[in-house]
Amino acid sequence: MTEATTRLARRPRTTATPLRVAASAHARDGGLTAHTDFHDWYAEAGKRAFTRVERVPLDDLTGWETDPDTGNLRHHSGGFFTVEGLDVRMPAGPVPAWSQPIINQPEVGVLGILVKEFDGILHCLMQAKVEPGNAGGVQISPTVQATRSNYTGVHGGRPVPYLGRFRDPGPRGPLVDVRQSEQGSAFHHKRNRNMVVEADGEVEVHEGFRWLTLGQLHRLLAEDDLVNMDARTVLSCLPFTHAELARELGPPADAFRAALLRSCDPSAESRHPLGAVLSWITEARTRTEVRARRVPLAGLRGWHRTPERISHDTGAFFDVIGVRVQAGGREVAHWAQPMVEPHGTGVVAFLTRSVDGVLHVLMNARVEAGYMDVAELAPTVQCTPASYEHLPASARPRFLDAVEQAAPERVRFESVLSEEGGRFHHARNRYLIVDTTADAGPDVPPDDPEYRWMTVHQLVELLRHSHYLNIQARSLVACLQSLLMPAEPAPTAERKVRT
Amino acid sequence: MTEATTRLARRPRTTATPLRVAASAHARDGGLTAHTDFHDWYAEAGKRAFTRVERVPLDDLTGWETDPDTGNLRHHSGGFFTVEGLDVRMPAGPVPAWSQPIINQPEVGVLGILVKEFDGILHCLMQAKVEPGNAGGVQISPTVQATRSNYTGVHGGRPVPYLGRFRDPGPRGPLVDVRQSEQGSAFHHKRNRNMVVEADGEVEVHEGFRWLTLGQLHRLLAEDDLVNMDARTVLSCLPFTHAELARELGPPADAFRAALLRSCDPSAESRHPLGAVLSWITEARTRTEVRARRVPLAGLRGWHRTPERISHDTGAFFDVIGVRVQAGGREVAHWAQPMVEPHGTGVVAFLTRSVDGVLHVLMNARVEAGYMDVAELAPTVQCTPASYEHLPASARPRFLDAVEQAAPERVRFESVLSEEGGRFHHARNRYLIVDTTADAGPDVPPDDPEYRWMTVHQLVELLRHSHYLNIQARSLVACLQSLLMPAEPAPTAERKVRT
Repeated sequence: MTEATTRLARRPRTTATPLRVAASAHARDGGLTAHTDFHDWYAEAGKRAFTRVERVPLDDLTGWETDPDTGNLRHHSGGFFTVEGLDVRMPAGPVPAWSQPIINQPEVGVLGILVKEFDGILHCLMQAKVEPGNAGGVQISPTVQATRSNYTGVHGGRPVPYLGRFRDPGPRGPLVDVRQSEQGSAFHHKRNRNMVVEADGEVEVHEGFRWLTLGQLHRLLAEDDLVNMDARTVLSCLPFTHAELARELGPPADAFRAALLRSCDPSAESRHPLGAVLSWITEARTRTEVRARRVPLAGLRGWHRTPERISHDTGAFFDVIGVRVQAGGREVAHWAQPMVEPHGTGVVAFLTRSVDGVLHVLMNARVEAGYMDVAELAPTVQCTPASYEHLPASARPRFLDAVEQAAPERVRFESVLSEEGGRFHHARNRYLIVDTTADAGPDVPPDDPEYRWMTVHQLVELLRHSHYLNIQARSLVACLQSLLMPAEPAPTAERKVRT
Repeated sequence: MTEATTRLARRPRTTATPLRVAASAHARDGGLTAHTDFHDWYAEAGKRAFTRVERVPLDDLTGWETDPDTGNLRHHSGGFFTVEGLDVRMPAGPVPAWSQPIINQPEVGVLGILVKEFDGILHCLMQAKVEPGNAGGVQISPTVQATRSNYTGVHGGRPVPYLGRFRDPGPRGPLVDVRQSEQGSAFHHKRNRNMVVEADGEVEVHEGFRWLTLGQLHRLLAEDDLVNMDARTVLSCLPFTHAELARELGPPADAFRAALLRSCDPSAESRHPLGAVLSWITEARTRTEVRARRVPLAGLRGWHRTPERISHDTGAFFDVIGVRVQAGGREVAHWAQPMVEPHGTGVVAFLTRSVDGVLHVLMNARVEAGYMDVAELAPTVQCTPASYEHLPASARPRFLDAVEQAAPERVRFESVLSEEGGRFHHARNRYLIVDTTADAGPDVPPDDPEYRWMTVHQLVELLRHSHYLNIQARSLVACLQSLLMPAEPAPTAERKVRT
């Protein structure tokens, strides 16, 4: 245990949550689980928990059927989700009308991380969990990922461990409790309840679970395909803005981190006051008229179904495929399901810039057909570059060049991360944070209808509420938080590990 | 002009908005329009702007038709709104399933108040406007009430004055800009953009408009049927929390006002921190499963249509009626439309209570079928008492007795106010604020699933965001704000009125 963590052990529990978050972020070498031991445990967990995924025709999905009238894919039980069609009208958009398959899963599930202090440092109870769509097998997941189907037992599996702690968080209440959206390009109005609950009393650690510090999770975010999407969204909702973060984190290592730290101070000056940001969001949500209507999947304009898949006539966007799954180390051993398989690896990036010494992030008011409320704040860039290869340069997404052509030293964060492996098959995005402070910087007029420079404390303030930051932006907020500490801290003289 | 307002005239424009709001609230005797002159002007406006409303059969509504397949009522143009059926399933509710007519008006309109400083005091440009459903003729309305139909000209009327100021609020942006919901019992997902914009440059004052101070509007709120619903919701969104309100308002006149003033200080201790309140709202919105589906109005279970009206078989709730309107002083002179006519005057009340010297308001997480997002924060009591007269005492709404049986000196606010007269015919509610500080007080456990005591600054913070406070609660927030100053200020020695 480092000197800082020993000092923290004596702090009373009344400390502000952001400072406790910072202290845990500081513990990058781990606590109960030494970081040097993590990969051994992770490799072992990967052996016990595995899936074998085999593609099967959509008509051969055991438990699933194609509705004879609508062509929609649905489970016999009525549970889980359905694959339907969506007819979208966006009169003022670049594409004023289109149709697409969409996953309809109207129930709100729970994504929960249980936390507890050990030696005064918050630890997160994380699970090494496998999902059929994961590119690399097991990934670090929240304590609980439960759909309503899960906890009402529609799937006939075992009860979800630790779920009771989130159903009844105790008198102190949760540290985080907010419903947030998921991919609006694939899901119709899907959202999950993101929760962080501090455990009272003893917590039994089941097989496949480990207590990790936030500092460890931050290091793991930099590794490809390791921290899953559900873990990232919950981590992003942890409040980490406070005027005195440096007290826990120590002085910033460089100018970028100094600007990031200042941006986490709620009193730091923002380019646009929060009221102006909210007005910009109101304008985006009012200006854009989106009419999305669920329609039959059969005969969806522009799409065709073969025995193996439902694809767009141009081959673009994504396919709906069928898979049969054999799983070990999970609650049920065999199942089949439809999945969404995107085409190509995406790019999801924040451009950042220091304005008067305060880091700002360039946010995009993005409309997706499946959102609850028209538009959400998305990263500066969110696209699949392969889709634009054969199109003229004018069709390229704004700021994609600034990301792809950034000098290596400007790239403060880069890793390839998976989207949710329970619904997506090998959906991977390259997540980047590119700082433009030293460059001429991107040209964004202050009244640009689609983009605004925002401080980190503004993003964190909006994360208390539902449906402001989209799922990709939330992943990047977690990644941005991971940059508060240098990638490799100075080695510490001594470490105390308890088990 | 009072001494206070003269002092304020010299203050630079950089003053925080809540302090400018407070200074205008202080000017209860008026500014450009002396309050003693108000009623003359208002009476005169009432003569020029009138409606004659005549009930007509639903099949005789010029411009409207009954869809032959669905029985829905719709305008020939496709504009305005439709009256459809709604099938509601709320498995865990007291009534697990019902059907009802609902007004479907998916477009987001604008409710805007233009403000401008005269002699350093903010004034609101208010309109004496008549709506066919108003109980008492003209009412004080926002500068602009514009549906999308209005400003795209579907109704063929004149352009809406001042609308351009809200389309392009200028470089400083609006002071208020947030979409808020309307009655979820009558509207499907209806919301309007509530805006307050500060005018740059000269403003021509059209006939029927007057510059009024907030203090004047606060006095008018206490008069029956005078300030309309749209004005109340926009006023409620004006930020009025600040640690130094007393600097503008003077020392509070009594213990209730002292507690109210403290409750407006964002640093005042709340019974439940905002995070806990947000978690409670998340829980209410997740726990309650509501499935509301638009269905044909024809054959709606439990409802029947006669030539004159669509009514519930029991005679309860509301009717859909048809009216023919002849109007003077409005953009079009004749039209017909369906309206919703509720049965009986409602009661809408805040119970308040001082907790450690800070006023708290008892809020109810209320589910209504037409809300965008399951539940919103409603007043302590919101009901139509007549509906419960023939039911056992156990069916009575919680806290209704505490409101109806309150000693007169506990009733800090009471007036009968109309709901929106463009859709509702004579929909009137008795709005009350009842302080329980001196009594035993209502019994509300701290983990009550339906009620929470909240401070005023928490309510104001949530009003920056959409869909937290329902329309009735917003009206009462405006009324609560009106209580910061005593009902009758000491007469001032001198008044300066400019015209």
